[in-house]
Amino acid sequence: MSLKAISSKDAAALDKDLMEVGGWSLDQLMELAGLSVAQAVWKVHPPSAGKNILVVCGPGNNGGDGLVAARHLAHFGYSPSVYYPKQGKNELYQRLKIQLQNLSIPFITDFSPALQQTDFLVDSIFGFSFGGPLREPFGDIVSQIESASVPVLSVDAPSSWDIQSGPPKEGPGAKFMPASLISLTAPKPCVQFYQGRHFIGGRFLTRGLADKYGLDLPGYQGVEQVLEVGVDAEGKL
Amino acid sequence: MSLKAISSKDAAALDKDLMEVGGWSLDQLMELAGLSVAQAVWKVHPPSAGKNILVVCGPGNNGGDGLVAARHLAHFGYSPSVYYPKQGKNELYQRLKIQLQNLSIPFITDFSPALQQTDFLVDSIFGFSFGGPLREPFGDIVSQIESASVPVLSVDAPSSWDIQSGPPKEGPGAKFMPASLISLTAPKPCVQFYQGRHFIGGRFLTRGLADKYGLDLPGYQGVEQVLEVGVDAEGKL
Repeated sequence: MSLKAISSKDAAALDKDLMEVGGWSLDQLMELAGLSVAQAVWKVHPPSAGKNILVVCGPGNNGGDGLVAARHLAHFGYSPSVYYPKQGKNELYQRLKIQLQNLSIPFITDFSPALQQTDFLVDSIFGFSFGGPLREPFGDIVSQIESASVPVLSVDAPSSWDIQSGPPKEGPGAKFMPASLISLTAPKPCVQFYQGRHFIGGRFLTRGLADKYGLDLPGYQGVEQVLEVGVDAEGKL
Repeated sequence: MSLKAISSKDAAALDKDLMEVGGWSLDQLMELAGLSVAQAVWKVHPPSAGKNILVVCGPGNNGGDGLVAARHLAHFGYSPSVYYPKQGKNELYQRLKIQLQNLSIPFITDFSPALQQTDFLVDSIFGFSFGGPLREPFGDIVSQIESASVPVLSVDAPSSWDIQSGPPKEGPGAKFMPASLISLTAPKPCVQFYQGRHFIGGRFLTRGLADKYGLDLPGYQGVEQVLEVGVDAEGKL
């Protein structure tokens, strides 16, 4: 199966449509996005493969998706911890953080040892709105992630990648190829440079919005909030 | 398995704790509650058993859970329709309604023929805050539902039942025994009068809140948002 990609500009417009016309709140969208991320983790790394999950969150909505995912992962029986070095100030992120603290999920401050100890990493640093360049500490973090042997699931895009043109030519992220990627709502153009397991989440897209933006409605199965989609031998959709 | 029940008063206090201390918005709680309702429908009535689902929504948060469930049911491949005779005025309910309209989910106005035509009914009229008596049109609606042969899933409590003392002695609801019930967060005391399949949903309860209110943490499986729990031969937990 292949799914049409959505540009960064259209992805932003679609989010705006969902909230301004579609009746959605960011709380709702992020809840379902984060849940789909947690379900994707279960598929690629069930608890029997190791319960320690390090969720690395960026300052924006991609990081918020990670915070929601960390909560669901705790309810799923994992032992998540969160690295959130540049904390978004809006009240939703603050509330998501409180929810995690009430589950005794640790917010770690020292990234390197946490990276060494974890069984799995969720990269929810940057998503479709990333315009580069990587500002510190995220350059260093991406460098450490790409050098480590821990399996990674990236949320929406491998962090550091240009949403259109893919991995940077040099520097942090140039060799970053996460084992798994979950695209939210629709793949981003950079997915053509991606090789690995590819999932889609965000089971709220309507036929009307799919048509408006020229997207496919993924064939989700049963009650699942996530679907694995194929990538061909050249890594193209 | 048995699960401790929560009184109406404590259920209201727990909701308040979740939102005022726990960092939750009503949007988030209702999203997960409604999703668990939709997943329970899938378990007792998969689409192969008939896709027409009539969701009857009351004016409060139980009705809001039903609106969210209807949306997920549409994404799951059902053909839901909604009967919502007394529409809650708060902006969340209005937004949930818009979300359903954008999925072309019909809001029906004539209940009796819709009841005759549906394959399954979700009773999300009243939940733990119901204090009786049933005001019209809900008395008539409950009478029609209890006389019909369509299978019913009630949300949180069979509508018309006293949350503590169960079915009314006479009048609408006196003979109402839905085939399925989903308790949200924890069973309500009236579940001791209930006989049928019993589910629990609301996979967001923390150990801290469970301990505060003397509740059990249900043993949800995998990534599921709903769990079937047992009721013994006397219908007691």
